[in-house]
Amino acid sequence: MKKDGRRMVFSHPVHLLGYAAAGGKRERQGPLGGRLCATSEDDTFGQPSFEKAEVRMQSLAGDEALRRAGLGTQPDAVLAGDLLNQCTASAMAARRLQVPFLGLYGACSTMAESLMLGAALCDGGFLDSCLCVTSSHFCSAERQYRFPLEYASLRPPTAQWTVTGAGAVVLGRGKGSVVRSAMPGRIVDYGVRDANNMGAAMAPAAADTLAAFFRQSGSRPEQYDAIFTGDLGRLGRDLAAELLREEGFDAGDRLRDCGTLIYAAEDRCVGMGGSGCGCSATVLCTHILPSLEQGSLRRVLFAATGALMSPTTSGQGESIPAVAHVVELCSQKEEP
Amino acid sequence: MKKDGRRMVFSHPVHLLGYAAAGGKRERQGPLGGRLCATSEDDTFGQPSFEKAEVRMQSLAGDEALRRAGLGTQPDAVLAGDLLNQCTASAMAARRLQVPFLGLYGACSTMAESLMLGAALCDGGFLDSCLCVTSSHFCSAERQYRFPLEYASLRPPTAQWTVTGAGAVVLGRGKGSVVRSAMPGRIVDYGVRDANNMGAAMAPAAADTLAAFFRQSGSRPEQYDAIFTGDLGRLGRDLAAELLREEGFDAGDRLRDCGTLIYAAEDRCVGMGGSGCGCSATVLCTHILPSLEQGSLRRVLFAATGALMSPTTSGQGESIPAVAHVVELCSQKEEP
Repeated sequence: MKKDGRRMVFSHPVHLLGYAAAGGKRERQGPLGGRLCATSEDDTFGQPSFEKAEVRMQSLAGDEALRRAGLGTQPDAVLAGDLLNQCTASAMAARRLQVPFLGLYGACSTMAESLMLGAALCDGGFLDSCLCVTSSHFCSAERQYRFPLEYASLRPPTAQWTVTGAGAVVLGRGKGSVVRSAMPGRIVDYGVRDANNMGAAMAPAAADTLAAFFRQSGSRPEQYDAIFTGDLGRLGRDLAAELLREEGFDAGDRLRDCGTLIYAAEDRCVGMGGSGCGCSATVLCTHILPSLEQGSLRRVLFAATGALMSPTTSGQGESIPAVAHVVELCSQKEEP
Repeated sequence: MKKDGRRMVFSHPVHLLGYAAAGGKRERQGPLGGRLCATSEDDTFGQPSFEKAEVRMQSLAGDEALRRAGLGTQPDAVLAGDLLNQCTASAMAARRLQVPFLGLYGACSTMAESLMLGAALCDGGFLDSCLCVTSSHFCSAERQYRFPLEYASLRPPTAQWTVTGAGAVVLGRGKGSVVRSAMPGRIVDYGVRDANNMGAAMAPAAADTLAAFFRQSGSRPEQYDAIFTGDLGRLGRDLAAELLREEGFDAGDRLRDCGTLIYAAEDRCVGMGGSGCGCSATVLCTHILPSLEQGSLRRVLFAATGALMSPTTSGQGESIPAVAHVVELCSQKEEP
């Protein structure tokens, strides 16, 4: 069966053949920093602008994921997106590769969207392999979404810190952990208007898709070793847990947020935790996938969340619509 | 066979169950204006901002396409994207629908990208139906990409006119014209840096994917009643024809550009023709699909083109990467 209600079930195993993440200085100093394939002491990655640095990060992560996957050829397609206006980090990075390019925009849910669509295209027989990649950069995001860094503007306590990082995954047939199923998310909007409280805006979307996934698959949170939300931060993670409990699913300590895992607990600058497309992508490639490979995790849900707003919509008084896509990942040993 | 090199071949017919386009005043005055399902005398569609007007256009086109498709239920997913920063026209329009949302960004190639991915997800058995929708609005695009309208800035002769329009197509199993195959495009960059000459920047991408499609499928331009590029304009269309001839494919009069079809020939304001996500989407829904339905066209290629740049990349001296995705559409009678 391919379609189980809203859930996409991949009948042929789609493997995660290779993966890698590149990240900035703060990310390197975090608990997962030792697993970054490339980093930069000044976050420029040797480039003349932060936008070009983000392009370079995507290329570094993508090249290393492709090297580890050992395809022997180029992938059949790149599925990529990012937070820059017009997703230019992805387009500029993919330009070198000379393979078909499918641009995605799911804000910070993009890593999950790319894994879901990539797995569907591989399982459906339309691609033999693909590279899924996304990124964010603190400095390019601050400039675009908030204020120039030089203003040194103060941040409210609910704010999060945009991760400087790129994650890349190669999907295809072979060996490695498996994408077993996925569920695309609906847009959920609880009316939150505070762009400095993205966790609260996105938590209802995470709970909505996770609850739908549990219901549709007939599974319970305790059947997963961990359930990772993308970048809700500490506050948003607790809100999502509460909303899930109201739906009848108590995830307890299994519910972890990538934004709370990427930085050291004593790092006071990051507010509620990491955010941005690069947050879930970097934690995926430096923690979740290595743990699946080593067997310390066997079956997890990856629920990256995105806030589908812009400075213009915020300025026009719109609330923040959010989306979360859920991807079920299993270690190779767990494969049925 | 599902995968024919880079080409995706849809083995079960994926039908275009319903379609509709909404457009502005200038579009209504063009030769296809009589087929718009909704229009607005002042291009605001009754909304307080041009961004909200664009959201409203997407909703009007989407609702009418869904009504005509007669699914009896909501579609399984919305695949949508647009030119506004963070693709907010699509997210805000999809918010009402309460169905899974897959955000895409292919700049002006988005309509072709959504048809290709939507058809693959339907053919692969992951969706029963989906709504593919995209839009652009002259006023929201001018403000974001160029100058506020009030500046009344002069336009060079190679410039094009962003279409105020939204197109929506419902894909699924049933009756109607068919998506038979598709080919995702590579990013092609010939080094064009002039953001007022998008046709020249995008023509190489159109020629690249079309030539690859002809080679892979073993077909020739004369086997198609028409080959529609998305928004190359008059200059870009001629460049694409020339590049295709160099590849050994003489498309002659069959090669038509949506940007040259949407406005009246005597309309001098529009420069080389229409552009924007809404250009190919509106012409698809007011000309191409009605012609397939009536039988005046039987087999066509739809090759929407996108320029994957932003004001920031232009300001940083980057050239313009472009992409074109090709979708093969057949009237129901042509089905094998």
